[in-house]
Parts: sequence; C-alpha cells; structure tokens
Amino acid sequence: MKIRVINPNTTATMTATIVTAAKAVASPGTEIIGITSSAGAVSIECHYDEAMSIVGLAEAIRDGERDHTDAYIIACFGDPGLLAARELTRAPVLGIAEAAMHAASFLATGFSVVTTLERTRIIAEHLLRNYGMEHHCRRVRAIDLPVLELENPKSNARQMILQECERALSEDKSAAIVLGCAGMADLVDWLSEKLQVPVIDGVTAGVKFAEALVGLKLGTSKRGDLAFPPHKPYKGMIADLAPNSILGK
Amino acid sequence: MKIRVINPNTTATMTATIVTAAKAVASPGTEIIGITSSAGAVSIECHYDEAMSIVGLAEAIRDGERDHTDAYIIACFGDPGLLAARELTRAPVLGIAEAAMHAASFLATGFSVVTTLERTRIIAEHLLRNYGMEHHCRRVRAIDLPVLELENPKSNARQMILQECERALSEDKSAAIVLGCAGMADLVDWLSEKLQVPVIDGVTAGVKFAEALVGLKLGTSKRGDLAFPPHKPYKGMIADLAPNSILGK
Amino acid sequence: MKIRVINPNTTATMTATIVTAAKAVASPGTEIIGITSSAGAVSIECHYDEAMSIVGLAEAIRDGERDHTDAYIIACFGDPGLLAARELTRAPVLGIAEAAMHAASFLATGFSVVTTLERTRIIAEHLLRNYGMEHHCRRVRAIDLPVLELENPKSNARQMILQECERALSEDKSAAIVLGCAGMADLVDWLSEKLQVPVIDGVTAGVKFAEALVGLKLGTSKRGDLAFPPHKPYKGMIADLAPNSILGK
Amino acid sequence: MKIRVINPNTTATMTATIVTAAKAVASPGTEIIGITSSAGAVSIECHYDEAMSIVGLAEAIRDGERDHTDAYIIACFGDPGLLAARELTRAPVLGIAEAAMHAASFLATGFSVVTTLERTRIIAEHLLRNYGMEHHCRRVRAIDLPVLELENPKSNARQMILQECERALSEDKSAAIVLGCAGMADLVDWLSEKLQVPVIDGVTAGVKFAEALVGLKLGTSKRGDLAFPPHKPYKGMIADLAPNSILGK
Amino acid sequence: MKIRVINPNTTATMTATIVTAAKAVASPGTEIIGITSSAGAVSIECHYDEAMSIVGLAEAIRDGERDHTDAYIIACFGDPGLLAARELTRAPVLGIAEAAMHAASFLATGFSVVTTLERTRIIAEHLLRNYGMEHHCRRVRAIDLPVLELENPKSNARQMILQECERALSEDKSAAIVLGCAGMADLVDWLSEKLQVPVIDGVTAGVKFAEALVGLKLGTSKRGDLAFPPHKPYKGMIADLAPNSILGK
Amino acid sequence: MKIRVINPNTTATMTATIVTAAKAVASPGTEIIGITSSAGAVSIECHYDEAMSIVGLAEAIRDGERDHTDAYIIACFGDPGLLAARELTRAPVLGIAEAAMHAASFLATGFSVVTTLERTRIIAEHLLRNYGMEHHCRRVRAIDLPVLELENPKSNARQMILQECERALSEDKSAAIVLGCAGMADLVDWLSEKLQVPVIDGVTAGVKFAEALVGLKLGTSKRGDLAFPPHKPYKGMIADLAPNSILGK
Repeated sequence: MKIRVINPNTTATMTATIVTAAKAVASPGTEIIGITSSAGAVSIECHYDEAMSIVGLAEAIRDGERDHTDAYIIACFGDPGLLAARELTRAPVLGIAEAAMHAASFLATGFSVVTTLERTRIIAEHLLRNYGMEHHCRRVRAIDLPVLELENPKSNARQMILQECERALSEDKSAAIVLGCAGMADLVDWLSEKLQVPVIDGVTAGVKFAEALVGLKLGTSKRGDLAFPPHKPYKGMIADLAPNSILGK
Repeated sequence: MKIRVINPNTTATMTATIVTAAKAVASPGTEIIGITSSAGAVSIECHYDEAMSIVGLAEAIRDGERDHTDAYIIACFGDPGLLAARELTRAPVLGIAEAAMHAASFLATGFSVVTTLERTRIIAEHLLRNYGMEHHCRRVRAIDLPVLELENPKSNARQMILQECERALSEDKSAAIVLGCAGMADLVDWLSEKLQVPVIDGVTAGVKFAEALVGLKLGTSKRGDLAFPPHKPYKGMIADLAPNSILGK
Repeated sequence: MKIRVINPNTTATMTATIVTAAKAVASPGTEIIGITSSAGAVSIECHYDEAMSIVGLAEAIRDGERDHTDAYIIACFGDPGLLAARELTRAPVLGIAEAAMHAASFLATGFSVVTTLERTRIIAEHLLRNYGMEHHCRRVRAIDLPVLELENPKSNARQMILQECERALSEDKSAAIVLGCAGMADLVDWLSEKLQVPVIDGVTAGVKFAEALVGLKLGTSKRGDLAFPPHKPYKGMIADLAPNSILGK
Repeated sequence: MKIRVINPNTTATMTATIVTAAKAVASPGTEIIGITSSAGAVSIECHYDEAMSIVGLAEAIRDGERDHTDAYIIACFGDPGLLAARELTRAPVLGIAEAAMHAASFLATGFSVVTTLERTRIIAEHLLRNYGMEHHCRRVRAIDLPVLELENPKSNARQMILQECERALSEDKSAAIVLGCAGMADLVDWLSEKLQVPVIDGVTAGVKFAEALVGLKLGTSKRGDLAFPPHKPYKGMIADLAPNSILGK
Repeated sequence: MKIRVINPNTTATMTATIVTAAKAVASPGTEIIGITSSAGAVSIECHYDEAMSIVGLAEAIRDGERDHTDAYIIACFGDPGLLAARELTRAPVLGIAEAAMHAASFLATGFSVVTTLERTRIIAEHLLRNYGMEHHCRRVRAIDLPVLELENPKSNARQMILQECERALSEDKSAAIVLGCAGMADLVDWLSEKLQVPVIDGVTAGVKFAEALVGLKLGTSKRGDLAFPPHKPYKGMIADLAPNSILGK
Repeated sequence: MKIRVINPNTTATMTATIVTAAKAVASPGTEIIGITSSAGAVSIECHYDEAMSIVGLAEAIRDGERDHTDAYIIACFGDPGLLAARELTRAPVLGIAEAAMHAASFLATGFSVVTTLERTRIIAEHLLRNYGMEHHCRRVRAIDLPVLELENPKSNARQMILQECERALSEDKSAAIVLGCAGMADLVDWLSEKLQVPVIDGVTAGVKFAEALVGLKLGTSKRGDLAFPPHKPYKGMIADLAPNSILGK
C-alpha cells in the first residue's frame, strides 16, 4: 500500500525527519512516499501559514491521486486543510494531531500536548475541541521556540522539550505525552526512555492508523459533506487547482 | 471610514448584491469597498472551495492594507480564513456568519440558520460551536440549492427560502432567522415583512458591527496568536503572498 | 436615535461616568439618555442587589417606551433583568457584559474579565456560560474592592485594576481585557495605552452595538418567549408595574 | 421544623393546592407554612413576571427569618430569585424545578419535563443547563395552556397533561416525568397511576429534600457569593427591602 | 422503612463507621442495615477494585430484596455498579458521590471534593461529568493516602484532610466541601466546626435523600433501561447471580 | 503478535463470528486468540449483564498475561470493564465501541450507531460522551431485537439492520454507520455494498488499531490511574481474582 506523508511546509530536511520516522514503523508492504509542499511557508507557525498551506496540499493530493495513493497523512500538528483534503479522495486522510490525540486517549485517561510556539497553542486547543478530546487533554504546553530550531543542533530544543514533558507529568498529572509538532518525530524513543510513559508522535501514529483503515477497506465517506467537490471553474493563480483539475476529470 | 467587504468567491454579480446591501445600511462617512476575489471558486460550496479562498482573501487584504482600510468583512457564510486574515491587520475583521449569529443572539433566545446547500450545513454547525452559539441556534436548515441559483431569476430560490424560514418558526420554535449565504443579502426586507421576526443577514450585520468596533477605536489584538505572522519566505506559486509581502515590509 | 443607558443602581455619580463614556462614542444623531435607577441599591454587588434592580429597571423602561426610545443599555455588568426587559419593548436591549464579551470575541481568541468584588465573579461566570463565551474567556479576575471605591479618588482602584490586567495578559495568556463593571468606563483609554491590547468596556460597546442594530432596523423578536408579557393584574407594592401599565395599555 | 413554602405568585388558591401537596408528604414534626406572595403577578408566565416576583419573595423571606424558618421552598417552576434568596438566610432554600430535576436523575437515566405555556419552555431549558441536567432531560414539553387554567375545572388541562406525558414516554423514550408547574402538584398520584413511571412534582420533592438537608444540619454556605448581602441603602419603593431591613439588623 | 447501606468493600470496621454515621441522621422509623460486601477488595482504590465490587453488591441486593428493603445506599465514593443495582429493584438506589454532589449544589455555587488517593481522582471527575456537576465542582483534591489509613489512629489523615479542605476554600474559592470517601463519614462534625462551611458526607446525604424519595413514594423507574434485567442463564462462578436468581424468580 | 479478542459473554457461537471477522483483517504475523467468557451472561443486554462481565474478563486477562498477549480487544459494544482491564496489563486494551467510534470520526463528519436493544441505547450514549464523540455521532438507533436473534437465521435481523441504516443515512444525514454489537461483525461487507458508505464494525477496527499501537511500541500508561492495581486481599467467591493473583505475583 502507498501512503503519502505530506509535509505541508516547504522545508525538505523536515520532510526527511518525518519520512525516517514513518518508515521506521511502516509494515512490510507499505510504501512511504514523503512529499515536501511545493508552495507555502518554510515552517507553519500561525493561522496564516496554516491556511496558505492548502495550496501545496492540493497539489500533493492531485499528484497522489494520479499515483493511486492508498492513504494520506497531513504531517503538521495543526491538521491544516484536513476536511478539504478528504473531499478530494476516496482514500483515508489523517491529520497528525488527530491521530496522536486519539491514540493517546486509548492509552491514558489524561494526556498533555507539548508543542513549539506559544502562539500555536490555540490551534491545538481548537483541534482538541473539534475532535472531542478536550476532556482527555489536561493541558497544551509550549516551549516557545520556533519550529525550525528543532533542526538546529545548537538550540536547546531537546532539553526544553524533555523538561516541559516532565512538568506535564508532575503538574498536570498526565499519564501520556502527545508531541505537538511533526518535527519532533525523531524524539519519541529518547523521550519514552526518559519519561517512562507513552510518548506519541502523530506522524507514526498517523501511518499506523492509515494502515489500519486501509486494512479494513475503509475510506473517506463519499456521501454528504465529504463527497467530491462540485465541479466549477476557479480563477486567478489557482485556476489550475479547480476540483476537476485535481480529480483529473 | 473605509470598510472592505470581500466576496471570497470570484463572481462579480454576487459582489454587486453584497455591496448594494452593505451600502444601504452604511452610516454617512462610511465608504464601502466591494472586492471580488481574484483567485478561487465562482461559488463556495464545500470545504475545498472554502479552504482555497484564502489565496484571493490574502490578496484582498494586502491591497486593503495599502489602502488604509479601517475594517474588513469576509462575505461568505463559512467565514473562511477568518483567523488568518486577523493576523494580517490591526483593523477588525468580521465574518458574516459570526456577525449574524451574534446579532441574532441579541434579539431572540433561539434562532435558526437557513442556508443553501445541504453539504454546507456542517460548516455552519462547526462555526456555531466555535463561536459558542450552539445553544442559541435551534437548527441549521438547508434548501439544497446551489449558491448561484440564488441569482437565477428562473429558480424558485426565494419561495424555497421563505418556506424553509416558515418551517424554522413553526417546527424549531425559533424567533429569529439567520440567512446562511452572502447571496441572500437582498432578501432581508422581503422576508422580514413576510415573517414578522428579525431576519439577519451577515453582510449588513458585519458592516454595522465593524462600524461599531472602529467607532470604539478597537481593532484586532496584536498580542498572542493574532499578532502579525512571523517573517519567513514562502515558496511556489504563492511566494508573493509571504507575510512580509502582504504587510508591505 | 434615542438610546437609554440605564444605570440599575441608584448612584447618580456613577450614571454620570457612564453617560460621559457613552456620549464620547455615540454617533452624530444619537441621543444618549442616562437614567439612574429610581429604586434599588446604591451599588450592585450580589445576587440580591441584582435581582432587586428589576424594579427600577421596569420603571426606566416604562418611561423609555413613552419617550419612543430606540434602544436600551442595561449598564451593570451582571446584565440584570435582561430577558425581562426585552419582553417589554420592540427596541433592542443590550447588557453591558453581553456587549463587551461578544466584542472581545471579535478581536482576540482569548480574553480575561477584570471585575471588582470577588463575590460577583460567579455572576460573570454564569453569564459567560449563558452567552456561549466560556471558551473565549480564559479567566474572570476580581480585585476585590467594593464598586463605589472606583469613585473614591483616595482608593488605589486604578492601580489595582491595571495590575490585575497585567496579570491577565501574562498568566492567562489573554489578548484582550473586558472590564467587569460599568463604573470602569472611564478607564478604557488609560488602560489601552498602558496595556497595548484591546480593552473593552461594555457601556461603550453596548452603545455602538445598539446603534448597529437600530441601523439594521432590527429589534427584539416579538415571537416566542420575548413577546410582550401576557396581560394580568399585579398586586402589592408593584401593582403599578403590571405589564399593561408598563406598556401603556 | 418549619418549612416555608413560598408561592411567588399572588393567587391564594394555587397556594392552597401547593400546601395540600406539601403537607401530604411532610414528616411528623415538620410544619408547612404556605405563603402567597404579597406583591407581583397572579401567575408567572414569562421572564418579566418571574423577575418581578423577587419583591414578594424578599418580603416572604424577611418574615420567615423573623419566624425562625428552617428551610424555604420557592414554589414556581422557574425557580425565580433562587440565588438571591439564598443570600438572605442560613437556612437551605430549594427551587421546585431544581428539586424535581435532581430527584428525577436519581430514578431514571432520562426524563421529560411537561410544563404549561410554550413561552416558559426556554426558562426550563436554561435551568436544566444551569443545574447540569441537560443530558438527563430528553425534552421539555409544553401543553400551551395558561397557568391558571390548571385550576379551571372546565379546562381540559388534566387530559392534555396526561397525553403530553404519554408522548414523552413513547417519543422521547423518557422513563420519568417532571411536572413543570407548581399548580400541577395535585396530579401526581393520578398521573403515576396512569403512566406507571415516576412522576415528580417539585413542591413535594422540595419539601422532602429540605427536610433531608435540615436533618443533616446543612444550610446555605455563608462563605463566598452566597454570604449575606453587603449592608447598603436601597432607594425608592423598595427602600424597606434593603438587605439589613430583611435581615433585621 | 429499611435502608440498606452497602459498603462495597469487605472491611467490617469501615462498615461500622458508615453505619454509625448513617444511624446518627436517620429519622425515627428508619432502620439502617449495614452490609459489608461478601466478595471483593478490602478497600476500593482503583478501577479494578471498583469493577469487581459488583459481585458483592449483587449479593447484597439479592439479600435486600428478600428482606423487603425500601432503599439502598452504595457507600463507596466511586458509586460502583449504580445503574446495574438500579435494574435489580423497584426501590431507590443512591450512590454516595451522587448524593453528596447534588446536596452540595443546593448549598453553594461552587464546591471542592477532597478524596484519598490521587489515582481515584479521575473516578470522581468522571462521575462529576456523568452527573452534570462539572460546573459546580471547582476541583477534586486528593491527600494521596490509602483508604485504610483513615482508620489508622497513627496516620496523620485527619490533619491532612483538614489542610486540603482549607486549601480548597482559599485556592479554589469553594464554599462547600464534599468528602470523597465513605471512610470519612465520622469527620463531618469536626470539619464543619473548623471550616465553617457545609461539609457533606455522602453516606448521611444518601440516607436522608433515600428517606425523602421513599417518603415521596418514588422508586427506580421500571420503564426503559432500568427495567429488571432480561431473564437469561449466567455461567461460571457467578452462575448463581443470574438476574432471575437475584430477583427470586 | 498475539491479540486476544475477548467476547465478554458466554456464547461460543458469537465468539466464532467475532474471531472469523478478526482473522479476516489481521495482518500476517498477527495471531488472533478468541476467548469466550468463562463467567457471566449468555448475552449482554443491560447494565447488570455488563457489570457482571468483569469476572470473566478478569479471568481472560489473567490467562492472557500468562500467555504474553500483545493486545486485548473487549468485544462487546458497551466496552465493559475497559479501564479496569487497562490497569491489569502493559498491553493496549481497546473496546470495540471505542475503536469503531474513533474510526468513524476519521472518515465522516457525522455517523450513526445502529444497535440491537432499545435499552442498550443509553449505554452507547454514555460512551459517546465519555469518548468525546457526542458531536460526531448524530444518533444512536436500535432495532429492538435481542442480541442472540442476530444468530437466528429465522429472525429478520439482517433486513431490520439494513433498513435502520438506510434511515440513518436519510433522516440523520449521517455519512457512516457504526455497528453497535459484536454480533454484527459478519454484516460489514454486505451492508457496505448496499449502503455505499463506510460501515464500521468495532471488532475489526479494534484488531487493526491494536496492531497499530503494538507496531508503535505503545501500551497502556503505567503512570497514574491506569498503573497496576495496589496489592491487597480479595474475599469471597472472587478471592482468587485479587490483583496479585491476576498479575501472577
């Protein structure tokens, strides 16, 4: 099965981190195809970055549909464009926040999210409410470091994340940690070892849940609001991304 | 004061309907500037159309900032890109669903929303929850007609809307009606006359609430998650819409 | 247009503060009529003070109806008698807590309320829930000073309010402040300057939203539970305040 | 022990019905003192009637405090003035809607409320939310008959109530009925017999819960927002109802 | 009337504490029958202990039905097996957490729960949500001491509970305390005296509310999901606890 | 990997249906071990049946731990004993209602549950709330047929289920179906074909999600309330099921 893991930002090194993590958990027979967004921000750190990532995401799904993709992962913790992406395909589409939050709720009665920038905390809080996870999540915590600092070996990011996780366990009385950024996917083993509680990264959780859904022969419902978009012309710079262009009709 | 009323779809005739309604309620001294989106769908009828409208919306706000706009209205009932738009400006930005729902809650303890397509009902339901209006709204109703049929004089749209409103009053026991599409802005007087309850269109409500906020010298908070987006490069077809390009820095 | 701003307590100096603030934001053509309650408490600081204020409020609306009032503001942060008042008139009636909370939700994803007495905090919390604003408000804070101390130049009220606002920004991560007492209406400019975030006073927000609703030709729905009260005799000391007496029938 | 059952409307015949029901369930040693409101509406059928009932309620509690009352029941299904009344006394104060809803939640996982006027349905719905009972109540139903018709032997009230209860059982799948008006207190036995499910009247439930609280030596907390009201002058027609007058200080 | 107070753990000394408290508040004519569980854990301190207590509870209700019991109290703060027990009898069945939480909501607008082990806090939090009490409870606090230490005169349990209650009043701004363990039933008077706020123990609250319901001739609804269990065989070690064996059919 | 699929009722033919479904979706390398409960009801159709199933469930997990089980599925739609079971093992434990509801939320914005007996509807509704799925589920529907009728070839169960699913799509506007009983696991393909929307059975969803969690090296958190139960003696018929006996200590 082919799973397209779409990094909705345009930084290829972050895609590499994501793909490495995804491949490490993929089942034999699962092909992980990492996609770096072709259009948008080098990192997604605010509502605007997130909203604009739909352009690259649309292109990635258009290409994915032509390549007979079996499932998609949107590998940014804000799950940008999730419902829009679902309209474009019969395949299942999972956001990494969604996958991680749901996985955490299977393993603990209370978890904390540890994310990067303070200003993205509200995005996680909105997702928790939309997904019905607000009673399972005890707190969203931010280390207030820019996303790309996760890749800077001179930053203190790892230690800051570890300390914030430890505070989550002691202060929030949480029993599991959800990592709030795709760029943290390589920290799972180290943090799990240190913290001795489930540490959940959405990229890997997304890959395994996508495998599960494909294994169940389940895909996005094409009845109701997630049916394919109605045919219509688009204008301006995104004219080529009109639904029928995406869908190859 | 200059209020930019942005129609996030690319159909100029719908913008004309919207602008006519907006001008009819604007105070002396308020200049209404109607903007038809330069990029995106001819009508917004699904999650994908909505998500993609961010491109034209970003352009409209970029232009608006250069023109010293005092307030913005996003004139599509899904309030697409609302938080993203707020990041881009110190001016207040209002969505028409938001404005209409809040206005209705000032006038009745229970209202119904009457919208066009069945598949957009879920969008209104998500907004109600995000805005805290789910207990004030008794039901979202759809006439299941495409948006542009509102402009087709041969369609039966007006009668269908009236009948759905009447059902809302009798079946939902609602005491006010929120019109669920910017393209219905010209129906307010006729429906109010027929129904004898407050009928609220978000375009006009948005204009008046925007005037109110400007009159209070209040604008979007630039502290926290609605602060201007962090500076960073964008790539691909939307490279020119990177935050600093929008902000003219 | 005539807007009656009703101070539901009996302290005329507080009415003066309120009216000054209201007039400062009123549009040309708007007449602000300040009313000091004729019956009830010198300040409203508990459930009982609030409940009893209905008597003076009823008298104020009776007089207002005879004077062809276009809109009413209830200028006490507990919004006492709001639904009762709405039954008595076709005009819109706004509470100042309601107006301020809704305005804040247009400008920030999270706000804090700063009020006077600790014991009135619960009243604000109940309103937040009734208005659907509990997810937008991060915390209600009290400086625990009696209401009338706001008018005492020797009290330290201003500084205490400023400090509590600063704590709201840093501890609650709020991005806007709602002032929790009509008597704080004169502090908006000073606090806005100091805090550099939107500071919202319900008196002024109420006036501008009332102007907006009147400009939209919208009034309280007279269908359903806000219809005029059924005709019936009242007994005892409030016999003269039976619905038909109020309504001049 | 002395329990004061306060009918907040001014109709003595309704008080008689209430008192008869209350006495029928009172324990030996419990004295039921029925009070007809001295000021306000002959029946409470809207927000305004309800708000105004505070005047008579204050007088009733003033008299009750002088008479060393052990507990109070507010015998109108809207529970008007409940928190205000609690401030005035150390004794427990129960509203009949509150008592009935809580009792129902002890006996069934889902109940329906059957009330009189359609326009008071919203009042019951607000109470359900305030009391945390909205998930236990499946629906509030109204027979849309004025309150005083319950006392009119020529009205069809009894049959209408029975039929509405039957619909509640079959359509709402409810397993218990809460009667939504103090004036229905005499119908409990007849309806219970007919329906073969728990039928709960708030007057009797209130009396028994009040006995329970007194038996536990529990009263209204005098810490926090239910502490006695701060001393202050009142003006106008209700000057004599200032807190200290009520409290006999 | 006969009230069976079932201690779902197997420690008879704790039953003695519970029965003493129950008898102290019971009305003349009420017979308190204390039952120590015949099967299960010596103390209930986790989800597993709680779930397993159903076996002893079923036996206790079987015996109770043969003895014509008028009401049952489940005297463990997790209210284990509450809905299952209700299916087995026409009598009312009350959990002590349920009784205490509801009683507290009658006396204060905000209360705190003070319980024993940290790990049982989540159980109380789940109950609060199920009962609709999450807005009335400001916080659940744990002293993190094993349940049976309450009976150990050398433990510091009393002082730890007192201090946690004091923190609840000052930090949570609560106005009443709910004791979170049946084994604390003997502390009510001492804590009430010290704290000067209502201190509510569920055992005594349960007894008085049960008397109230019996006095109202109300019992568990036998319509819908609390009707007697369908007849069917049970296998294995609990074959003798099949519904019909319990019900004596 | 070994997955133990525990049928908490004692009917081996139902276990066979469950195991057939589980094996059909299991990955190569996954061993499905079907367990029929050794103690309890032949079918689980009420709160009591459900609560009592803990005995057989405890035995099944005891045996499973000795057999080095990698994950457990509780194959009854009420998810009985879920948190208790989680305490007993480091392996992940999934309930089939939980697995199915979460899977449905990945594929549609609104689903309906179709279950057997009307009286178990409330159990599904409680789970929806506990799992945060109440906004994703539009309605729980029951065909009101006993569970074991699903196995009776003469019953009309299949057609009744199909018709109820069709009503869910047309009346509830749902876009996916969750099957509300383990005994329906063999109907997925047939219903999917007929309905053309995702039809989700919890047994198979549970198996695939369990594989996913094991593949992620994630298990139940042993910190907080899901840590192993405290050691203590148990008495009576379940003395051998004390935590340490289960855990083999």
